Order: sequence, then C-alpha cells, then structure tokens
Amino acid sequence: MRFPGAHILSVTQFERADVERIFEVADSMRPYAHRERMTKVLDGAIMGNMFFEPSTRTRVSFGCAFNLLGGEVRETTDIKASSLTKGESLYDTGRVMSGYSDIIVMRHPQAGSVAEFARASRVPVLNAGDGPNEHPSQALLDLYTIKKELKSRQQNIDGMHIAMIGDLKHGRTVHSLSKLVSLYEKVKFTLISPKELAMPDTIVEHLRQRGHEVVETEDMETGLVSNDIVYLTRIQEERFASKPEADLYRGRFRLNRSIYTQYCQPNTVIMHPLPRDSREDANELDNDLNQHPSLAIFRQTDNGVLVRMALFALTLDVSEQIDKSSREVNWYTERRF
Amino acid sequence: MRFPGAHILSVTQFERADVERIFEVADSMRPYAHRERMTKVLDGAIMGNMFFEPSTRTRVSFGCAFNLLGGEVRETTDIKASSLTKGESLYDTGRVMSGYSDIIVMRHPQAGSVAEFARASRVPVLNAGDGPNEHPSQALLDLYTIKKELKSRQQNIDGMHIAMIGDLKHGRTVHSLSKLVSLYEKVKFTLISPKELAMPDTIVEHLRQRGHEVVETEDMETGLVSNDIVYLTRIQEERFASKPEADLYRGRFRLNRSIYTQYCQPNTVIMHPLPRDSREDANELDNDLNQHPSLAIFRQTDNGVLVRMALFALTLDVSEQIDKSSREVNWYTERRF
Amino acid sequence: MRFPGAHILSVTQFERADVERIFEVADSMRPYAHRERMTKVLDGAIMGNMFFEPSTRTRVSFGCAFNLLGGEVRETTDIKASSLTKGESLYDTGRVMSGYSDIIVMRHPQAGSVAEFARASRVPVLNAGDGPNEHPSQALLDLYTIKKELKSRQQNIDGMHIAMIGDLKHGRTVHSLSKLVSLYEKVKFTLISPKELAMPDTIVEHLRQRGHEVVETEDMETGLVSNDIVYLTRIQEERFASKPEADLYRGRFRLNRSIYTQYCQPNTVIMHPLPRDSREDANELDNDLNQHPSLAIFRQTDNGVLVRMALFALTLDVSEQIDKSSREVNWYTERRF
Repeated sequence: MRFPGAHILSVTQFERADVERIFEVADSMRPYAHRERMTKVLDGAIMGNMFFEPSTRTRVSFGCAFNLLGGEVRETTDIKASSLTKGESLYDTGRVMSGYSDIIVMRHPQAGSVAEFARASRVPVLNAGDGPNEHPSQALLDLYTIKKELKSRQQNIDGMHIAMIGDLKHGRTVHSLSKLVSLYEKVKFTLISPKELAMPDTIVEHLRQRGHEVVETEDMETGLVSNDIVYLTRIQEERFASKPEADLYRGRFRLNRSIYTQYCQPNTVIMHPLPRDSREDANELDNDLNQHPSLAIFRQTDNGVLVRMALFALTLDVSEQIDKSSREVNWYTERRF
Repeated sequence: MRFPGAHILSVTQFERADVERIFEVADSMRPYAHRERMTKVLDGAIMGNMFFEPSTRTRVSFGCAFNLLGGEVRETTDIKASSLTKGESLYDTGRVMSGYSDIIVMRHPQAGSVAEFARASRVPVLNAGDGPNEHPSQALLDLYTIKKELKSRQQNIDGMHIAMIGDLKHGRTVHSLSKLVSLYEKVKFTLISPKELAMPDTIVEHLRQRGHEVVETEDMETGLVSNDIVYLTRIQEERFASKPEADLYRGRFRLNRSIYTQYCQPNTVIMHPLPRDSREDANELDNDLNQHPSLAIFRQTDNGVLVRMALFALTLDVSEQIDKSSREVNWYTERRF
Repeated sequence: MRFPGAHILSVTQFERADVERIFEVADSMRPYAHRERMTKVLDGAIMGNMFFEPSTRTRVSFGCAFNLLGGEVRETTDIKASSLTKGESLYDTGRVMSGYSDIIVMRHPQAGSVAEFARASRVPVLNAGDGPNEHPSQALLDLYTIKKELKSRQQNIDGMHIAMIGDLKHGRTVHSLSKLVSLYEKVKFTLISPKELAMPDTIVEHLRQRGHEVVETEDMETGLVSNDIVYLTRIQEERFASKPEADLYRGRFRLNRSIYTQYCQPNTVIMHPLPRDSREDANELDNDLNQHPSLAIFRQTDNGVLVRMALFALTLDVSEQIDKSSREVNWYTERRF
C-alpha cells in the first residue's frame, strides 16, 4: 500500500511488506520514545483525537506518540458531548472535523463507524477501535512485540508457536492479530477457550488456508505446552448479553507462576492486550508473574508508542525527516525500567 | 473598537469597519489554515478553552485555530467537573482562571454568564455561546461565508436577498447574524417560520429601522424564490419546554434537491449553522444536496477556523507579525477538498 | 532531599531547606508566569495530567505551569473513562501510563492511591490530592503566599501569628499547611472551629512538640485578634456522612468587612484555599472584601502557578537552564491585575 495520506482502518489492508515497513519505522522511533533524543518533525501539525468510547490507555498512547513527534493534539472524549446526539450523520461529522486537523484518530463503539467517518474525511483517519470490529494499531503493536521478543531469542515470526487463551469469540485483538500473523509462514496456533467463546470459524479457516496449523482445545494445561508465545485475553464483559453470562467464564483460564513453571517451556513470552482484570474472581494473569523476565505486557504498551509514532510518520510522510529535526534532550530522563 | 486586549462578547460591539477588519485578517489566515505555510506567532501563548456546555465542533474549532497560530490550549469540558458546583461565583472563577492563561474562550448555558466572567477576568475573553444569548464567532463566520460566496458571484452583502428558515425564535445564530447583516445596506430578509417560532419583534424592528426590507411568511415555497442566500436552521429542541412540543415543528420545513431546483434561483447559496439533524423525521437539509456546488455548509465550518484565528490575532495583537514567523510545511497536506 | 527524578507525594518528605529551595525557584519563575519573558526549557517534554476526581482549578494550574515551561500536556479527567473500572490495578495503570510521558500529575479520591501508583511509575509523580490525605502543592503555594505577603510587611514566617478557621477536621489543606509551617520557628497557631470539626490531635501535638504555640477556640471574635494571617476554609461537604450533617456547620464562621475591621489588626492577610462557597447560606468569606488590599486569595492561586513550575523544574532538573532558553513575548500581555 501507499502510506502517505492513507486511512488506516483494518489489518486486512496490509501486505507483509507493509507490516515490515511499519516495524522498520517503529524501530527508528526508539531513541525518541526513550528520550535519548527529541524530534520536532511534526511541529505545527494537529491531530484530532476523537474518542467516542472511553479508552484511557489507547487515547493517551496515540496522543503522546503525536506529541513525541512534535505535533499538537486536540481531544474529544465523550460521545454525549457530541453533535451526534442531535442527529448529525457521521458523514457530516467527518467532513467538518477533518477541516480542523491534519490527521484524525478515532474510536467509536459501532462497527464500521470509523470507515464511514473516513469516507467523508479530507485528512487521514486512523482507526483506534470501532466496537467489536477492528483495532489495527493494537494488532500491530502485538505483532511488533512478538517480533522483538522472538528476535532476542534468535527466533522469527515464521515458524513460531503461539497459544491464544480466553474469550477468543469477542476478543477483537486476537482476531486482528491472527489476521496479521497469517501474513507470515508456518505458524502453529493453539486456541484455548471454552467452546462457547471459541475463535470464529471464518478466522480459523483463513489461517488454515494460508498454510498455518490450528489446534483448538478447552484444556489449558495441554494447550500451554511447547509455545513460544502465550497470549491471554480478558473476558469482554461489555460484549456479553448480561453480566451473569460473562461471569460464567470469568476466572476459567488463569495463568500464574506455578502453572507457567509446570506447563510452559522456559522463556515462553507472556502477553496480554491489557487492561488485565486483577480482581480475585477474574485474575486471568496473576501478579506473581510481575517480575518475571518473560512477562512482556508492559513492553507491549511501550511498543505501542513506537508503532503509533510510525503510523503517524508514514501517513503524514515524514519518516525520512525525523533525524534531521532531532535534538538532544535537556531534562531528567533516567527511567526506572 | 480597539481589538488588543478586548473581550469579544456580542455582535453588538462591532461597527461595520470592525467586521471588515476581522474579515481582512481572516483572509490572511488562509495559507496557514490550508497548510500551505505554518506560523508560530503565538508560540508560548496559552488559551483556556472553557466549555461548561457540550459543543464538540465549536470547541475543537477554537482549539485548532489557536494551535494553528502556534499556541497551546488547556481545556475544561464539564461543568460538573467545576468548582461552580461547590458554590463558587463566576467572579471568583473568572479571577482565578484568568491567572492561568493569555486568553480565554468560554461557553456556558446561562445568558450573560460569559460577560459576568469577563468582568472578573484579567485577560481577553471570547464568548463561544452563552445559552440563548450570543455566539458572536458563529455570526462572524456566517457573514464571512456569505461575503466569500457572493464575491465569487461578483456580488456584495449590500443589496443581497437572504432567506432564513426554521426555528427563528430560539435560533441564536439567526439573531446574531441578522444584527451583523444590519450593519450593511439595503438587504432583503425573507423570514420563513411557523408563526409560533417567528423571529423576535425587536430584531425585525431593528432591521427595518436600519433601512432593510423584511418579509415574514409561513409559506416556504413562495419564500424561497429569488434569494442569493438561504440559511436553514435546526429546531432548537433543547430550548423548548418539552420534546413533544419541539416535535410539532420537526421536519416542517425541509430543503432537498427537488425543492431547491423547483423554487430557488440557480446558484442560490445554501447555508446552515450545523449540526443538521439528518434523522428521517427532521432532515431539514437533505443529503441529496451534499454534492451540490452551492451547498456552503462545509465551507462555513472551514471558514470558522479562519475567523477564530483572526479574533485571536486581533485581541492578542499579533495580526501584523504572522508572516514573519511563518515557515514551509514539511508533512503530507494534500486534502480531499 | 534530592529533587531530580523524585516523586512529590507528601509535605512530610520536605526539610526546611527543601521548602526554601522550591520557593527560590518559584521566585525565578515570576517573569515567565507574568509574561515579561517566555521560556521553552521543557520543549518536547510531556506531562500526563491524570485527574480521577474533578478539580478544574488544580488541573488547569498544573497544566498551564507545564505549558509555561514549554512542555506538552496530555490529560485524563474521568475515572469512569478508565481501565480501573475493568478491574485494572493501580500498579498496572502506573506501569503503563509512565511509559507515555516524562512526568505525571495525579489526583485520585482514595488516600494512598497516588503513592501506590508512584511505586509502579517509571517517571516522577506529583500528588495533586489523594482524597482526604495530602495535597502538597496546595500547602506549598499557601506557605509561599504567606512568605511573600509577610515579606512585603518586613516580617518572616518565623514568629508569625496565624489563625485557621472553619472545618479543621476534614480540611486537608490546613493539615498539610500546618505540617509545613511546623518546619519554621516559634509560630503561634489559633485554631478556630466547632469542637466537632477541630484539628486532629496528632497534628496539634506535633506542632507543640516542634515548639509552636497552639490555642484552640470556638469563639471567632477573640480568636481573630492579633494575627498576621487568617486562613479560612470551606465546610468539606463531600467528607461528611450526609449533607444535613454538613449543613449544621455551614455559615457558622464568616468573615466580612465589618468583622474584619472590628476584630483583626490592620493589614492582617486574608487567605482561603478556594473555591469559597459564595451561596448565602455559607458565604464563609464575604464578597465585600473583594477589593481589600489584604485579601490574598487570588494571589494564592497566581502563586500556585509559580510553585508548580518550580516543582516541575526541580524534579525534571532544568531549574538552572530556564533563562538560557528564554525569549521576549510578542503578544498582548497587559493584565488587569
């Protein structure tokens, strides 16, 4: 695909070469995100950060990514505070808001809404999640993390073994991640979930058609064995008909230090899209793994900034100019990593 | 009037020369808003964007206008999140908040509140709407749009024919726009509304005293004939005693392509303050006109940025310095206009 | 203490020398806050302004202070909009959010929450109020104001007489201020409150142990006599079991011009942490004193910006570089002080 001026709406718009290009630019963002240097390459540019559904983490991550490139951010955080409640169409909203900024990041609870908005927008639109549908930057940061974690073990995405665990039916992140991974070669997917929350058939079939191996199981212990990556998910309470229905599944699959040690091969990378539910009745990923070197969940969110910086740099076509407008950082930057 | 340091609270504070000065500065903002060049003339300045009532469009438009001049924006978007609920007076709020920024933009649901706040403020205050009362930047952007649209037809505001349609009783924008237009010469106003939602008598009388012609009618078809501008409005549901009462009037006056073709003279400019209500039972301005070259509604909101940039530049006295601190833009700026 | 990289969580972490250092840096911020000059010393730095409880004044004050140093601000203003409602721990939130910015300012309704967050954070955290517990920047700006007001009268904090009036039981600000003042010498505290809302014993004892004189009384008139400072507080309605219980005390102690003239010595400085409740049934500090030269309440909030700039400059270690990156201001800056 051609990045400058493009909307980023779905992982399905990428070829493997596109993904590799994003990751290459993400790599080049590291010194800026880590505050070794700073850049003002987007000095004067404005991003509209439109969140019609709450998501602190994703919103702030996109906002900081834009600030790290030197741009300004204008935010909208409440759908009730919007003209949509006065009967305005997404077409009108898109036409109008796209006159205010150079690029728009949008989250909306309704599937397809961001694409509809983008059709009216005169500037690039990045989908930050449209309900149960797509969240491409999350899938990209997950795959980028997988790539980096495997690389430090001298492995590649091609040929890896990955287990996905939990609510695979409603988990938008595992759907999108699966589609992205499918661009690579000979991956083994182990899908661990209650039957009722299994990965949709269309995705499983797609993976098999692309030549990947897929094993589906309800048994976590056997499923955990011999993976390079285990990817856990939260029960998507908000996607169930009722809370009691969701509660049937809460806490069904849990990973903690003793299970990890007993079943996983050493150095298996532990991932989770966050937030994880740390309440006792859920606790899908236990805090007793917090200090474990293979726990990659916080590296995932850190990588999210790099990937989002890369998406901005590519769609606004400044990826080649970043180093030219870079400077030393003059404030305290020691981190407690 | 003298702009530097002034509060902008009401359209009644302007003479025709003031309006023309604002439009002249707005013209000079075009290359910056269109991203042909960028300016950092307000680099280091801070605007307090205080919205005690939801209004995504107006809030973001003001915010981006300030960013486009190089300044920073600090926002407050929820009256419940404010000290006013703890019994603080607008005087105290004004004194305190004016110590934090260089200029304040304020919207508040109560008529007169912004003026009261401004009396205590130590920095310029721009009224972004105080309930049913005033919204001067909207009237300015409407008139600026009229001027530009007519100019492209080799016409002027003096002598134009304008029809205003819909809820002319509660429509703050048509009140303020009428007052501004009254500064010009020999305009013909055709006011189309249900009798119960007619333009207030004081405004009609004011227009006549200034030598303008005013025709009032309930019949849209005859009213539409031979205008240069038709300005539609939404039923201001929130200003009615009840929703059922408002519903009596919803959808009563509608403009669509077939009515436009049948009754309006060719090239009649179509305007609307937005948001327009596109739900089937309202639909005061049909989507089948979206591609019509005379539909100026999105040029209106684009012009809003220019007019707001001009207000900032004039009240902060940097209108003569903008080009000096301007630079080329280095990111992707092709627009789908 | 060593400032660079430090969390600022409680007034108890300061020695007198630390307080004096903060005040010295605050003094150096005056030309920038007053717009005589501007500085971009934190150009490129990002502050995360996380308010999990409403507080317009404190939030905007911190935000503007960071902007005045040239940095960017990313805000979170609604706890319901946060992952915490999905069962995320403060540890996870702290780890994740600290990957997005260079420093974090946090307010949260729960005592101890900010410290818990800070333990997981990889960047400095400034406590902007954790429920009934601590609000160190408020205590610092209060003491800084006392110092400046007394200095203009050729007096010092050492040896001053201060009266504190109102809800001394729930008033977080008077607790923290008392602790800070206790670092100085031979102060006389007159504590005026209903017995049920008296200053906690632990704080009174602490003051006496440090060699200060403490008088407790329910009688405002005698308590007001012969003070250098009178510090009024609001009834902290939100900390009572019920509104009717709080109402028992509303309006019990009021200061107005006639009481001030009758009982206070001339030039007694009047302070209040704001917001003050100006509704008739409360009105703890009457508007008839608004023009009185000894009313310092708006100088307090103005000083808040200086103190917060100082905290940023010290924790991010740029206090020595500010003048080097300073410039003239080119926009309208006359203030109606």
